[in-house]
Amino acid sequence: MSHLFDWKEERNLSLLVDFYELTMGNGYLYNGVGDKIVYFDMYFRRVPDGGGFCIMAGLQQLIEYLKNLKFSEDDILYLKNKGLFNDDFINYLRDFKFSCDVWAIPEGTPVFPNEPLVIVRGPAIQAQFIETMVLLTINHQTLIATKANRIVRAADGRTVMEFGSRRAQGYDGAIFGARAAYIGGCDSTACTIAEKMFGIPAVGTMAHSWVQLFDSELEAFRAWARTYPNNCLLLVDTYNVLKSGIPNAIKVFNEELVPLGIRPKGIRIDSGDIKYLTEKSREMLDEAGFPDCKIVVSNSLDEYIIRDVILQGAKIDSFGVGERLITAKSEPVFGGVYKLVAIEENNEIKPKIKISENEEKITNPGFKQIYRLYDKKTNKAIADLITLADEIIDESKPLEIFHPIHTWKRKTLTNFKAKKLLTKILDKGQVVYDCPNVTDIKTYCKEQISTLWDEVLRFENPHKYYVDLSSKLWSTKHNLLTKHNIHFR
Amino acid sequence: MSHLFDWKEERNLSLLVDFYELTMGNGYLYNGVGDKIVYFDMYFRRVPDGGGFCIMAGLQQLIEYLKNLKFSEDDILYLKNKGLFNDDFINYLRDFKFSCDVWAIPEGTPVFPNEPLVIVRGPAIQAQFIETMVLLTINHQTLIATKANRIVRAADGRTVMEFGSRRAQGYDGAIFGARAAYIGGCDSTACTIAEKMFGIPAVGTMAHSWVQLFDSELEAFRAWARTYPNNCLLLVDTYNVLKSGIPNAIKVFNEELVPLGIRPKGIRIDSGDIKYLTEKSREMLDEAGFPDCKIVVSNSLDEYIIRDVILQGAKIDSFGVGERLITAKSEPVFGGVYKLVAIEENNEIKPKIKISENEEKITNPGFKQIYRLYDKKTNKAIADLITLADEIIDESKPLEIFHPIHTWKRKTLTNFKAKKLLTKILDKGQVVYDCPNVTDIKTYCKEQISTLWDEVLRFENPHKYYVDLSSKLWSTKHNLLTKHNIHFR
Repeated sequence: MSHLFDWKEERNLSLLVDFYELTMGNGYLYNGVGDKIVYFDMYFRRVPDGGGFCIMAGLQQLIEYLKNLKFSEDDILYLKNKGLFNDDFINYLRDFKFSCDVWAIPEGTPVFPNEPLVIVRGPAIQAQFIETMVLLTINHQTLIATKANRIVRAADGRTVMEFGSRRAQGYDGAIFGARAAYIGGCDSTACTIAEKMFGIPAVGTMAHSWVQLFDSELEAFRAWARTYPNNCLLLVDTYNVLKSGIPNAIKVFNEELVPLGIRPKGIRIDSGDIKYLTEKSREMLDEAGFPDCKIVVSNSLDEYIIRDVILQGAKIDSFGVGERLITAKSEPVFGGVYKLVAIEENNEIKPKIKISENEEKITNPGFKQIYRLYDKKTNKAIADLITLADEIIDESKPLEIFHPIHTWKRKTLTNFKAKKLLTKILDKGQVVYDCPNVTDIKTYCKEQISTLWDEVLRFENPHKYYVDLSSKLWSTKHNLLTKHNIHFR
Repeated sequence: MSHLFDWKEERNLSLLVDFYELTMGNGYLYNGVGDKIVYFDMYFRRVPDGGGFCIMAGLQQLIEYLKNLKFSEDDILYLKNKGLFNDDFINYLRDFKFSCDVWAIPEGTPVFPNEPLVIVRGPAIQAQFIETMVLLTINHQTLIATKANRIVRAADGRTVMEFGSRRAQGYDGAIFGARAAYIGGCDSTACTIAEKMFGIPAVGTMAHSWVQLFDSELEAFRAWARTYPNNCLLLVDTYNVLKSGIPNAIKVFNEELVPLGIRPKGIRIDSGDIKYLTEKSREMLDEAGFPDCKIVVSNSLDEYIIRDVILQGAKIDSFGVGERLITAKSEPVFGGVYKLVAIEENNEIKPKIKISENEEKITNPGFKQIYRLYDKKTNKAIADLITLADEIIDESKPLEIFHPIHTWKRKTLTNFKAKKLLTKILDKGQVVYDCPNVTDIKTYCKEQISTLWDEVLRFENPHKYYVDLSSKLWSTKHNLLTKHNIHFR
């Protein structure tokens, strides 16, 4: 498929906002702070499934939303009818022009807790308004890309196909879920529209209903082989895999394909004990002269089952992964948050902090940048350093980094390179970033993951990658905490 | 809000299909069975979270999809470019006219495992094509309506607000999730667009960022009270609930509202120990002369936490429930399936069965109806009886029902009434059903739940509601199983 189609449809999702973003917007305007320049960070606090990192995803959809953000007459009428908002606010929305600056980490990048994935700078009323959509868009796709990557790593080089549309949480769950799964490393999807929209290879052959619709399994297989001689992959578990499905498949391969000099593509098993059935099926297919016939399995798979059956020696070439990928079933919530971190006053950036009795919930104040620090010799990522936005890392000098809480834990880096993770995406509301296509994002993702140590990639209890604060940012935070400590204990 | 808006946007979701629906459709046509009349059942096998029942939801969106099903030139071009489909099939899609009959259980109805929620009768190529969208639409909303109902029952009469958009799995997850949550019993939503689209009350006040944007919490509260004197609900946990938030709220209520003769609406707590903080806050508000000031809590709530804090005596008037509702976090997959159950041959309906070594996965064959049987005296639902579609229940005679597996477990009903659950929705592709508005569905849902025994409503280990097969259906199934048993053991 080289021919790609644009996502032309224009959906009006402008009012996909939490209602408080409207009441606050109206209130900011009423209190004369609507145009005050503020900074919000979108970040997350922990990696789902106890993993070592997440995969940033969803930026393209966020950009599309921001680029098109405006209010229809319908929207305005609806808001007026609420009887809650001042005319000034209604008029502001009618003439709305998005004017924020936005920075973000490119899709496909491995990201870690407490790192701003998206930074929004702009008038309070606007930066506040987009809270829900920033979170919803990034939370969803990052969740699925992260889960997909775990599954793909478990499959250890075998093909992984995303099969979950029917169990997704809504249409976008299926469509953008397929996109995120592909970024995270899946090879293809069953979701046809995802190929049309994004060029992700769509695959699929038959369901049990195909087999049932014919008078016998054998006839159903024959009909398939005659329709798709070059794509002959048969679902063999409608009645009984080893007593009926595989023998019938072999018969049809021999009768319909071999005389034409065509090799069968494979068989699929969607139920029963995967380990036992694939071992036996492999033996039967090999003996029958089809060692090149692939074995595809599906049926409630995830990274844990995949790892287990591979360890047990199951003979599988390809996994179709459905509901547990598309909903990230083991942990279906990505807890990204969107917090005010600074305001501008008299042309100065004034850092703000949100304090909590729970230390983990305390924000990193200020307008920031993230540097990923690589060892020049191994090309492996050593640590990420969150700095204030105007800080510059001098690669020619040793760099001391330290644990943000246990500050006596220190490390001095030499022979490193520093790469900025946050890129400008919108400048005063105008898009200044070219979204790569999903295949390039997927490739980039794989490359980036290869810079992580194995210890960080481990499924369970991975090494905690260092995400440190620069001295300047650490002091900024510490000073604000000290100033506010009157409220604690 | 009485002014409602239509969901005018037309989304082209025609290719939101699993790719195998296309390869099978093409194959059916090629093998001369494309127009064979088939019956598919959509049903589920178990209730999420170990609950006693589910709430049917999503039908309106399914109808909208089926009503508008057609293929754009873009769609056709994409499919042609795949190089896999015959011209006959491409032309069939170009001239596509949906002509299936569809029956369904109305939204808001409590439903049980193995009951067909949707039945599709029509040409194989069409009935197969819509598989993904039937499943995706009903699976998603039924999952969320069911979860919401658990949460609402746990809240035991207190208000429940759906607050989950930012953590939903995609935009539709937020929007249709809010719809399903409302059907399941939530009182309102934070998702603004859900009010515009469906008339679900949208609510919300302020985030922590409001408080942070002003020089002090006190000033932030003052500004709010002046902006919204009649809607003064303050978020009190930005710094410290009991030492700062509540005292400042009381001060502002006294200074800004009392002189105007206005009562405050409430306070919201979004962190910390709910039980302790609400008890103390209640005391402080009562002492200050605001016993009518409501206490709203949010922060990772679900039915278990809500039940627990209520049991412990927490003083809460209203719950804002987010991520755990909108993703059905504890069990985020609704496992609906879509199975071929009959074909028509020589104008006769020929039941089909899908056999599995797992007894639970064996389908109920044939074209069916479901009767809900009510005790006339108590008006409580006693059992559901799945019958062949042409069976009639004579309410004037005793009716013997029996367990579908342990057939010696029998019960004879007298003085009962029988209500058909499946209603015709589309007739030869034309909609013949008027979707009620969501508020009516919500009311209907509540009424229907009141016909269930408390034993079925229990959260954990509920009584298993009887879902039996009529003698005729049971025999049909048994005969087919006997015929096929050659494959087993």
